[in-house]
Amino acid sequence: MRGTGKADVFVMLAHPVGHAKSPGIFNEIFEQKGLDSLMVPLSCRPEDFDTFWAGITAAENIRGVIISVPYKVPVYHKCAAAHDRASRVQSANSVRRQADGSWYADNFDGVGFIEGLKAGGHQIAGRRILQVGAGGAGASLTYCLAEEGAAEIRLTDIDKERAQKLASLVNKTFPNCRIEVGQPDPSGMDMAINATPSGLKAGDPLPMDVSKLTPNMTVVDIIMEPAETPLLKAAKEIGCRIQPGRPMMDFQVEAMAEFFDIERKDRRNG
Amino acid sequence: MRGTGKADVFVMLAHPVGHAKSPGIFNEIFEQKGLDSLMVPLSCRPEDFDTFWAGITAAENIRGVIISVPYKVPVYHKCAAAHDRASRVQSANSVRRQADGSWYADNFDGVGFIEGLKAGGHQIAGRRILQVGAGGAGASLTYCLAEEGAAEIRLTDIDKERAQKLASLVNKTFPNCRIEVGQPDPSGMDMAINATPSGLKAGDPLPMDVSKLTPNMTVVDIIMEPAETPLLKAAKEIGCRIQPGRPMMDFQVEAMAEFFDIERKDRRNG
Repeated sequence: MRGTGKADVFVMLAHPVGHAKSPGIFNEIFEQKGLDSLMVPLSCRPEDFDTFWAGITAAENIRGVIISVPYKVPVYHKCAAAHDRASRVQSANSVRRQADGSWYADNFDGVGFIEGLKAGGHQIAGRRILQVGAGGAGASLTYCLAEEGAAEIRLTDIDKERAQKLASLVNKTFPNCRIEVGQPDPSGMDMAINATPSGLKAGDPLPMDVSKLTPNMTVVDIIMEPAETPLLKAAKEIGCRIQPGRPMMDFQVEAMAEFFDIERKDRRNG
Repeated sequence: MRGTGKADVFVMLAHPVGHAKSPGIFNEIFEQKGLDSLMVPLSCRPEDFDTFWAGITAAENIRGVIISVPYKVPVYHKCAAAHDRASRVQSANSVRRQADGSWYADNFDGVGFIEGLKAGGHQIAGRRILQVGAGGAGASLTYCLAEEGAAEIRLTDIDKERAQKLASLVNKTFPNCRIEVGQPDPSGMDMAINATPSGLKAGDPLPMDVSKLTPNMTVVDIIMEPAETPLLKAAKEIGCRIQPGRPMMDFQVEAMAEFFDIERKDRRNG
């Protein structure tokens, strides 16, 4: 039976949380593996976040939390320690309980993205890449693309200052990657990535100038739903190779399951 | 799929929580009814209770909480409103969210006990009853037995003052029931009830003087595990009718499911 008093407890935190995919995915994994574990979706209002997080921390048998919008940065700042992937972007999408009850942060946005690209047969090393969107997930992507040896990244964001700041930070860590802030124009690039929410809703504007796409380019969207965004549809019609958002999620789930060590039985409830 | 981002969330709170039966029972009910709902076992240390409860309250999509030792009284005092069954014993074993986000308390210990007795064919009205144990669950039992028309209750507890206090409180509400504080001796009674934890562990002393049991008596234990406590075993050998603890739990679960209105879909996560 899954969900007894001895169950290992994980939380998915977002506001709102109804759209979150992780609880369904993880509960399905727990079911398939026969684990007495639960992932429970929880939501709180931003003005209640500090109170909420203190309560989650006091709930001693919660082993880990997956975090989404708008709490990745606030949760990061509640953690006692963090992997470099989380601290360089000051953002946590997964935290696990340490032996002393405090939290350790990590962030698998970039890892999942890179693993997804590799599994799709897309090379990153040596490539010139347009990345549209330098927000939460975007920042993780830029670091990871530079880390994987991208030759050049053209970064663009409606908040130009945010893009500039990210470019200069990533450049300090990975000086071999040329990073410039520019227009959402894929001309001269090998790959074009949408890391904005544009395409989630019907009627959203296209995130980049698709008239500049050419068939030799690879076009990537991090949006999972719809699976074929207007951007990917346009790219496909032009003859580009495309990469949808779902593999990024799948590889993140794999990394999180390992991070949480879900098959280890905890004795905290006992 | 049970346990998506849209799941209705219920909590079972106890410290420790590993032994709690409700999460397994409710998750099984959710599964059978095809409800996208979860009951998650949570535990916190007594010194963290205030922080924990503030966090649970901030988690806006938690619809209800089942409470066990040692938090029934502290949770009662966090509630904005309560059913008379909870307020007369100042103890909550179930709370549900009200429209304004505050909590409404109820307590089904006594209800479950009475329903269990009735289902077992045991009459209460007009009976003389020995009740051993005037603690948390015990207090609910005394009120409900008096309410059901018991003619006389002999109340006994290792803490005599506690028994005296309960006797005088119940007597004020139900003056037609004769309540006295006495010895754990069933002589002259129709029914003898164990409402202490004695019998949970092997080697526990018997909660009452079994040498005074006679075949015309009914002996009741609220302990669920073992199903046949040493008290019930002794009573059976004497020829008494017996009533085990499990029905009390089953009828409480039924009352709680109704209290939580588990088949109603909430939109808080959306």
